[in-house]
Amino acid sequence: MAQSTVRVPVSALGAFVNDVFLHLGASEEESRITTEVLIAADIRGIDSHGIARLRYYVNRVRRGLVNLRPNFRVITETPSTVAFDADNGLGHPAAYRAMRRCIEKAKETGLCMATVRQSNHFGIAGYYATMALEEPGLCGLAMTNATPLVVPTNAREPYLSTAPIAVAIPAGKERPFVLDMATSTVAWGKIENAQRAEKPIPAGWALDRNGEVTTDPFAAVALTPLGAFPELCSHKGYGLALFVEVLCGQLAGAAWARYVSGSRGEARPSNTGHAFMAWRIDAFRPLDEFLAHMDEMLHELRTAEPVAGAERVLVPGDPEFEAEADRRANGIPVHPKVLQDLRALANELGVPAAF
Amino acid sequence: MAQSTVRVPVSALGAFVNDVFLHLGASEEESRITTEVLIAADIRGIDSHGIARLRYYVNRVRRGLVNLRPNFRVITETPSTVAFDADNGLGHPAAYRAMRRCIEKAKETGLCMATVRQSNHFGIAGYYATMALEEPGLCGLAMTNATPLVVPTNAREPYLSTAPIAVAIPAGKERPFVLDMATSTVAWGKIENAQRAEKPIPAGWALDRNGEVTTDPFAAVALTPLGAFPELCSHKGYGLALFVEVLCGQLAGAAWARYVSGSRGEARPSNTGHAFMAWRIDAFRPLDEFLAHMDEMLHELRTAEPVAGAERVLVPGDPEFEAEADRRANGIPVHPKVLQDLRALANELGVPAAF
Repeated sequence: MAQSTVRVPVSALGAFVNDVFLHLGASEEESRITTEVLIAADIRGIDSHGIARLRYYVNRVRRGLVNLRPNFRVITETPSTVAFDADNGLGHPAAYRAMRRCIEKAKETGLCMATVRQSNHFGIAGYYATMALEEPGLCGLAMTNATPLVVPTNAREPYLSTAPIAVAIPAGKERPFVLDMATSTVAWGKIENAQRAEKPIPAGWALDRNGEVTTDPFAAVALTPLGAFPELCSHKGYGLALFVEVLCGQLAGAAWARYVSGSRGEARPSNTGHAFMAWRIDAFRPLDEFLAHMDEMLHELRTAEPVAGAERVLVPGDPEFEAEADRRANGIPVHPKVLQDLRALANELGVPAAF
Repeated sequence: MAQSTVRVPVSALGAFVNDVFLHLGASEEESRITTEVLIAADIRGIDSHGIARLRYYVNRVRRGLVNLRPNFRVITETPSTVAFDADNGLGHPAAYRAMRRCIEKAKETGLCMATVRQSNHFGIAGYYATMALEEPGLCGLAMTNATPLVVPTNAREPYLSTAPIAVAIPAGKERPFVLDMATSTVAWGKIENAQRAEKPIPAGWALDRNGEVTTDPFAAVALTPLGAFPELCSHKGYGLALFVEVLCGQLAGAAWARYVSGSRGEARPSNTGHAFMAWRIDAFRPLDEFLAHMDEMLHELRTAEPVAGAERVLVPGDPEFEAEADRRANGIPVHPKVLQDLRALANELGVPAAF
């Protein structure tokens, strides 16, 4: 696979994505933000959430399921909370604006939580969490729900989404701690990778149509919560997914996962929900003390003795920082099937692609 | 085991625990709160965190490692944040007071986050999260760090604690959603249970002194993060534990897990850290809408079709609510070894026990 994968410069991919959204009728700002977040996934090595999903977003827009001129608005607000309605606009700019406002309010009051209803798939949760790192002394958190894919412990069918949580915490000299994870054992992209490679998946990742464990990626229709098996406490992953669901569904006033619409099932507005938090470190403790304390822990972890057979101990976010350094310098490695599809999309839409 | 386990009334156990703390020199308020939280663990069926740990707390106090007359105080405060120093007092009253203040502030401003440093082991995180359910329309969250027991993915030694997270969310007609979980695959109590029963443990729960997976509970010295194996994404459980650690260690200004003191290693003040949150639902959405939406989801989950071989689908908190109903009516089932030890403790201290 490696030899047939083409490296495309970040700028060329970004220009194409931006042109696609402009062509579809999105405003310059909506297009710019959506492109920024979408390409960030590819830059960070989270290939399942970047340009590989461009056609998904395009299809939703072309079917009239997304509002490209939304009235993004505040529903209710207090000094430390704010609830938004995204008016069925693209998820990326809705989430970007909600997190930006959440950060501004946290800078004023020390802490803020923001929710968004009537939104759409927003790409990688980690993008919004790491926005907080652009401000000195701020931490960020982002969550979303999505279509039902995850089967609660003991159940047979998916009721919950992969319900990702992302957290970004700054350090001093050390690289920051950036967690960006689905609360399912794996994201659906891992099943698609196995399908493309025609290889079996580990027992515990996915379930078949009867809710039974399968190692056949083509028989897989749903995912397990983190923990994978009841014996390994999958009820905890299920509980975490439910927590994310409550904030993004019930608290935000969006649909809850079972009723979020996406690529499967009936075509209707998605009503995805998101939740965000930001907080000032110096509301709790002097920033310099915190950063030194983070450095101490992250350094100890990164230099910890590995177990036999392992190369090194990583801190969450390290693989993404390493992918980013490589990809900004050498371009995004695009899978041939994805590249082929992007070129087909360029032809269909009449939007030129410089790759 | 069932036939030799004695049922002791809640009131008899509570009176004994309260008398023990009074005897040790704790104030009436400190004794009352510590008893309340400790017995709540037994009532909810979390036997590892209740009276079975009484001797641990007593020993720490008798060795002079805990301050029974602490100056619990605010270090810094904003309208939506507050940081406390527990002055090395008992963890239960420190956490109780911090959560109580967090709730009061959230009622005023919609949202609050509180941290506590220089504290001690606080019992079950779920107790503090569920305090929010006593107020109409409030949600609660509680976290703590603890002594190092959890081995980061790829590492050989424990650096992190079981780093529990508890969340309590109200519903309307349905029972609330109460999550109370360690971010490790299992809590250490499960290893102790297997030791008492002299039975092997499932592969994936624990690691031996070389950081290798073991099924021998007597060879186990450390725990895996939720996910259990790298292939099943234990790096996610590790990431969650690190997130809890950052809030309770670095943000609170307490020790981080590697340096938290407890039953193992050098005898010194623990410097455990906690973090709490509370938020008002009506800061985001009308309460009645939220409660109806929760009811819809919880009802669908509780009546979901189970997979072959499973009895029913539970919502986090259901086992504890069922244990509580049974135990309040019929008493706490106390393991004979624990009962024997409690009677020995009663003799040692000269505190009468009515069981």
